[in-house]
Amino acid sequence: MPRDSLDDLDTKLLAFARDRDWEQFHSPKNLSMALAGEAGELLEHFQWLSEEQSANLDADRKDLVALEMADILIYLVRLAQRLDIDLIDAAYRKLDINQARYPAGQVRGDARRAEEYERE
Amino acid sequence: MPRDSLDDLDTKLLAFARDRDWEQFHSPKNLSMALAGEAGELLEHFQWLSEEQSANLDADRKDLVALEMADILIYLVRLAQRLDIDLIDAAYRKLDINQARYPAGQVRGDARRAEEYERE
Amino acid sequence: MPRDSLDDLDTKLLAFARDRDWEQFHSPKNLSMALAGEAGELLEHFQWLSEEQSANLDADRKDLVALEMADILIYLVRLAQRLDIDLIDAAYRKLDINQARYPAGQVRGDARRAEEYERE
Amino acid sequence: MPRDSLDDLDTKLLAFARDRDWEQFHSPKNLSMALAGEAGELLEHFQWLSEEQSANLDADRKDLVALEMADILIYLVRLAQRLDIDLIDAAYRKLDINQARYPAGQVRGDARRAEEYERE
Repeated sequence: MPRDSLDDLDTKLLAFARDRDWEQFHSPKNLSMALAGEAGELLEHFQWLSEEQSANLDADRKDLVALEMADILIYLVRLAQRLDIDLIDAAYRKLDINQARYPAGQVRGDARRAEEYERE
Repeated sequence: MPRDSLDDLDTKLLAFARDRDWEQFHSPKNLSMALAGEAGELLEHFQWLSEEQSANLDADRKDLVALEMADILIYLVRLAQRLDIDLIDAAYRKLDINQARYPAGQVRGDARRAEEYERE
Repeated sequence: MPRDSLDDLDTKLLAFARDRDWEQFHSPKNLSMALAGEAGELLEHFQWLSEEQSANLDADRKDLVALEMADILIYLVRLAQRLDIDLIDAAYRKLDINQARYPAGQVRGDARRAEEYERE
Repeated sequence: MPRDSLDDLDTKLLAFARDRDWEQFHSPKNLSMALAGEAGELLEHFQWLSEEQSANLDADRKDLVALEMADILIYLVRLAQRLDIDLIDAAYRKLDINQARYPAGQVRGDARRAEEYERE
């Protein structure tokens, strides 16, 4: 069975950091800052666009956005590696929690409930 | 060949949003905000910890951190779906860029170069 | 001449931290994380709202937003105190930079130039 | 009595936006994104520094940090103007809340309580 793409990425990112002796900077605290910094850069691409414009990026902008998202994924995978967290498992656990908390029949199209979802 | 874990997650997250008619809220602009909001929650777990403490979380805290990271991954996957971006491909492209920019032999253990890495 | 409101706030916030022996946690690094965490909480109030809705908050929501903004100001003032930075002076210096960079006659109503403004 | 520095700044920032016809971009939603983006840039200055290094910036770095903090203050003042929120009043209200919630005699030097402070 092929290894999963996130596992492969994790292996390559760890080698990248070790080859440069940069693991010393990669405490979970520091990685959380780097991740949030990249999330801030992502925001900057969208902040003056309307929602509709944000869904219709030109090719150049879309590529820049893809690389910002890559940075976020890279730090997320690095952080998971440092804390020995299985990201995919955590995502499915969170999805199960959300499915129990927001039954489809009760929250359909309801922005308020969608928002509560965020406040957890 | 099994589908990749991120593809499976993408499919399930899309179904979750559609079942609740929440796709209307999931513009790229809004998803970038939700992602950054979750990155902020992640920071809050680490902000008063030393770097060493951040690497030695107790089990309860680690689980909360895992669920925050899950939220970030969930919004990242949703955003990639809305923009038709291949996250794994983007991550490898970014890794290639970084490898060309920061040759291991030249930047070993160098915080300043690690930092420049961030400023791109 | 009365002291300025930000100076008074600074004095009171410093006393608050000292009375609790919390200054030990208030390194600039940690304060930057706390500030960004609060900025993330601010985002969460607006992320599923339209731009128009965001300008027409009900009284309860507006009050919650005001308190999030208060947290951001509090951390900004604390950080300025730790780094011995004059916030008002810095704001006017930045405004001068922006006025030179974006002459009103050249950038009127131009989202692209407004966006460049952000990328600095 | 002289006007307060934040009031003066508010007046000048409003004129800056109006002269450029940029108020159309300054919805509270968009301003919250711009503010969070700047908070992310602030993080990037500190993310690979130790706490001690973050308290001992060289003059060039300190000036860059001051200008990032200026951007945060600028967006905070703009947002307060759009929502008709009195920032200083909100900060004092929040300080009162915190003083009631964290009596100095009970929380002295307690990181856990300092952290709860953040979770509100």
